[in-house]
Amino acid sequence: MTGVVDTVRGPSRSSVSVGALKRLLVGNPLRSQQLSETLLPKWLALPVFSSDPISSVAYATEEIVLVLGAGGIAVMGYAKWVAAVVALLLVIVVASYRQTCYAYPNGGGAFAVSLDNLGESAALTAASALLVDYVMTVAVSIVSGVVAVISAFPSLSSHAVGMSVGFVVVLVLANLRGVRESGRAFAVPTYLFIVLTFVMFAVALVRGAVGDLPQASTAGQELVRTERIGGVFTLLLTLKAFASGCTALTGVEAISNGVPAFRKPKSRNAALTLVAMGALATSMFIGITVLALHLHARAQPDGNPSVISQLASATFGPHNVFFYLYQAATAGILVLAANTAFNGFPLLSSILAQHRFLPRQLRHRGDKLVYSNGIVLLGAFAAALIVGFNANIDKLIQLYIIGVFTSFTLSQAGMVRHWNRELAQAPPSRRATIRASRVVNAVGAIATAAVLVIVLYTKVVHGAWLAILAMVTLFAMMKVINRHYAAVSTELELEDGETLTLPSNTHAVVLVSQLHKPTLRALAQARAARPTSLVALSVNLDEEGIRRLREDWERAGLDVPLVVLDSPYREIVRPVLEYLRAVRRAGPRDVVTVFIPEYVVGRWWEQLLHNQSALRLKARLLFEPGVLVTSVPYQLRSTGRAPKAPMSG
Amino acid sequence: MTGVVDTVRGPSRSSVSVGALKRLLVGNPLRSQQLSETLLPKWLALPVFSSDPISSVAYATEEIVLVLGAGGIAVMGYAKWVAAVVALLLVIVVASYRQTCYAYPNGGGAFAVSLDNLGESAALTAASALLVDYVMTVAVSIVSGVVAVISAFPSLSSHAVGMSVGFVVVLVLANLRGVRESGRAFAVPTYLFIVLTFVMFAVALVRGAVGDLPQASTAGQELVRTERIGGVFTLLLTLKAFASGCTALTGVEAISNGVPAFRKPKSRNAALTLVAMGALATSMFIGITVLALHLHARAQPDGNPSVISQLASATFGPHNVFFYLYQAATAGILVLAANTAFNGFPLLSSILAQHRFLPRQLRHRGDKLVYSNGIVLLGAFAAALIVGFNANIDKLIQLYIIGVFTSFTLSQAGMVRHWNRELAQAPPSRRATIRASRVVNAVGAIATAAVLVIVLYTKVVHGAWLAILAMVTLFAMMKVINRHYAAVSTELELEDGETLTLPSNTHAVVLVSQLHKPTLRALAQARAARPTSLVALSVNLDEEGIRRLREDWERAGLDVPLVVLDSPYREIVRPVLEYLRAVRRAGPRDVVTVFIPEYVVGRWWEQLLHNQSALRLKARLLFEPGVLVTSVPYQLRSTGRAPKAPMSG
Repeated sequence: MTGVVDTVRGPSRSSVSVGALKRLLVGNPLRSQQLSETLLPKWLALPVFSSDPISSVAYATEEIVLVLGAGGIAVMGYAKWVAAVVALLLVIVVASYRQTCYAYPNGGGAFAVSLDNLGESAALTAASALLVDYVMTVAVSIVSGVVAVISAFPSLSSHAVGMSVGFVVVLVLANLRGVRESGRAFAVPTYLFIVLTFVMFAVALVRGAVGDLPQASTAGQELVRTERIGGVFTLLLTLKAFASGCTALTGVEAISNGVPAFRKPKSRNAALTLVAMGALATSMFIGITVLALHLHARAQPDGNPSVISQLASATFGPHNVFFYLYQAATAGILVLAANTAFNGFPLLSSILAQHRFLPRQLRHRGDKLVYSNGIVLLGAFAAALIVGFNANIDKLIQLYIIGVFTSFTLSQAGMVRHWNRELAQAPPSRRATIRASRVVNAVGAIATAAVLVIVLYTKVVHGAWLAILAMVTLFAMMKVINRHYAAVSTELELEDGETLTLPSNTHAVVLVSQLHKPTLRALAQARAARPTSLVALSVNLDEEGIRRLREDWERAGLDVPLVVLDSPYREIVRPVLEYLRAVRRAGPRDVVTVFIPEYVVGRWWEQLLHNQSALRLKARLLFEPGVLVTSVPYQLRSTGRAPKAPMSG
Repeated sequence: MTGVVDTVRGPSRSSVSVGALKRLLVGNPLRSQQLSETLLPKWLALPVFSSDPISSVAYATEEIVLVLGAGGIAVMGYAKWVAAVVALLLVIVVASYRQTCYAYPNGGGAFAVSLDNLGESAALTAASALLVDYVMTVAVSIVSGVVAVISAFPSLSSHAVGMSVGFVVVLVLANLRGVRESGRAFAVPTYLFIVLTFVMFAVALVRGAVGDLPQASTAGQELVRTERIGGVFTLLLTLKAFASGCTALTGVEAISNGVPAFRKPKSRNAALTLVAMGALATSMFIGITVLALHLHARAQPDGNPSVISQLASATFGPHNVFFYLYQAATAGILVLAANTAFNGFPLLSSILAQHRFLPRQLRHRGDKLVYSNGIVLLGAFAAALIVGFNANIDKLIQLYIIGVFTSFTLSQAGMVRHWNRELAQAPPSRRATIRASRVVNAVGAIATAAVLVIVLYTKVVHGAWLAILAMVTLFAMMKVINRHYAAVSTELELEDGETLTLPSNTHAVVLVSQLHKPTLRALAQARAARPTSLVALSVNLDEEGIRRLREDWERAGLDVPLVVLDSPYREIVRPVLEYLRAVRRAGPRDVVTVFIPEYVVGRWWEQLLHNQSALRLKARLLFEPGVLVTSVPYQLRSTGRAPKAPMSG
């Protein structure tokens, strides 16, 4: 006999009346098919995926200047070399990820690439790093965006923490509503920031050529040396500056993760966009660093005014409309950068859940409730970091790039493995290309691994240990979850030829406290299931109540025996369990179905007044082998669903 | 046909293995019958029920002296008259409650007496007053006990709040463990306090007679007048002092509530104990006040050292061992007084729940879980008050006696009504006695009502409004709860001759996500219930999963059709509901039973990883008329309850 398989259409949206409030708050859901309608052209993909890496230039130069400034004017001279190495690294990483776009057209996230090539532990390491990173992206970008605002309006400087948390709250609310459709809106601040940065370079060039370019407002500040220099100390300081400058690379991987969102040919379009992004980020970073050094901009200990705002102020003039516009664009692109984490976090969670590393509830994107949990959680962690570090961008950055470079390294190392395997199967004609690709990724892996070592070495005592601790915790948690799901799956698997075995006998037990409509309905349902035996069961909690129940029972003339259990300790669960076990002992292959009459009330506070013991009993009975629990609901009028004609009983 | 009624013995304690941890924490439960074994002899009943009223003398004199002290030395002369009126009031109230012991041998709590004689609203007013009062008893007694400790060890004075909250926590833990059996332990500090108070009087008399009695340590302090006096102002200040001094009466009602706990003849023994308590409290209060005035003890603004400790210090000598012993006994009896509230609060809640004014979960004393909630709640409110009022006894007392005198007045007024009814039925021979009793209660009612008016007038702006607000809120809440229960009860009542009506058809729907052991078991159970129709139902959340399910289904050759619902918005609940409604539309008098396979895991964190959508679906289906929900549990090995031989499927 073969199974009968057919399909029923799902409900149409128009027939739906519930959830109107949810719709109002979080917007309309998207059909699964609609996803294909939202594919991005390159000009739109660039701002959507690049707000994070491009916005990094707003703080990367600042960090280099800040760290080296502590070494005094002599060490400041190394800034241009540090920046040059960062720029080179940016080129290497972009080249490296360009390959990923082609090799993983379904999205080459660090997790996917590592899982594919380096195994589970590497993949989970990458995933932990990325999850931590999303939190850091929100915190760092938001705080940096607030710095841009405060640089324009210094009187706000005492409100940095409050404003930052406020932005996080706005992002959380916006994402709970769903901001996916707003790709076009994303483009505005990103392009504005890019264009204005190059306008600033042009103005600076022209004013410099005519000798009209003023110094930065902080150029007069003496550099107070607070760090030891000379020999190895200078090297260490330079490495620290380099490690901080590497924040310019954060977010570079976003495009290679997002290949499926591009129009066809997806890989090619993604690669082109990535190269465009790399070119923009590199040139902007170099330009800003050169300008900062040229104008002698000094990084301020509290970050206000920011170095980039000093450049804009000097170039455009301190109260010029372009200066304010530039600060607005800077703040805008940084908030967008934070927003990317709100998209990335649930997506990665969903992938991890699919691979059974996170609770399965996170798997389905349609499950808005759980999505919301992820969004709120991300916002809460970011806000906690902002408050905990007092919105200090320099301290937050110490935690940031550990995760970034962990996932970079694993992703690139995974690509090297990928090419090794390709090489084994490829026809001779393709081998040279593959070997070249392998070199690119190998260089990427080695370079990012080297940076990771430098970052670990220079930052671990300055707060990075916290990020590492978070990563280790996540890693362990995902391992444990995965092992649990695997064990359950094995335990539940059908054996060969296993099929339906009906129980020898079924006993129906109806729990009764009073004889009223819900009880009668439960009795009717129990009888309708045609059990081998049927009893009504009550627990004696007070003599008066039981006496009344017995009288009612006699009067109603019901053809069902009423069993009353003594409960000297006034418990409900234990006597019922003992009774059920006695029934099961008499017939070990029998099954007992416990029918629980429940009346259902409409208002939340009404629910507090009822059914608490039924709930506890139901939860407990689930642990009892051979016992089934059937809820027989009786809807009261306050639910708005009471049947007009009684269904039964 | 008549119902078959029989009784099954409950489980014996020895067979029980679960709950060992609970036992360890909260002690062994008491059998209902054991209650009768704990009846109290008078010598034990006195300390158990009288710690609250007797301990009140530790702060009542203090409050009088404090309030009048603000009027300067001239007004202080009124103190003895104020104390005399308070003592007279104490005698009146004791005489009044003595009658209640005889009239209500089952316990004449203000709620019971009011409900019996004055109707629901009066009873609820009394109940609200008492509930608020229990919280105040804890807060005031504990803070006063801490004052006794600090008076002995002044260096602790900066820790008053911490120590008070600490005592509350200890009481909460002790009561969670159950301290009912410890009647004998209660006797020690109470008798010690009583005996030492009279020893102090004796020593003071002797030393005073030989001219060797020193003044109080604060006698040299000038009384700084901070209140207006003269004419009506003096009167107001005196009334205020009187209102504060009335705290001496708090807890007098405890014995009349506790008549059932006395040995036979219950009423007589209770009445005798009440008189003994009244005599002790009155004489101690008078003695302490006289001594305080004689030694010119001054109340301190922060309450340290307390007046009563100044008396002990002067009489026994500041570093005499009797002084320290007396402070310990004072602290001890005050903590016991606080403890009485932890017994009274759940008892009253239970009575209110029995009358359907509070959630029914509070009704059964055996329900330790809910009992615990009450204990924790009481402790939390008291701790909040202590922290909120910075452990200031004078400010806390402003909130205290509103509730006490509200319940006194209602209780005595109820007694007057009680005698009126008795009088109507009594034989002429008893009428004179009843009339006399009525006079006693009428005097009590009028006196306490007068005090209530004075208290309201003098204290409402000093914080009593908070107590009144709490009482009004409780009153409204209880009314609403009662109305709800009454409405539900009416709605559920059986109509005449209503009896079992079986549904026309029963349809079984088994929810399926994969084909594994739990699914097979659920299918077997569904079939065993012999439904009119049987289908397996799945929701298409991802194509890949559904494809695999269909393959498995075909391969297993199950004789059950598999229905797959489309869910374009990746929801589970909605498509299932629509399907069920369609089935019900086809047969409006049919019933659909939804079988949900659930696998049950052992550890709490494992439970987070499973069944969340099943839980949500089950909760939602309860609101669907004509739909039953059957949970078919499958216990995994981690529950320790997996069946050795598979039950079925």
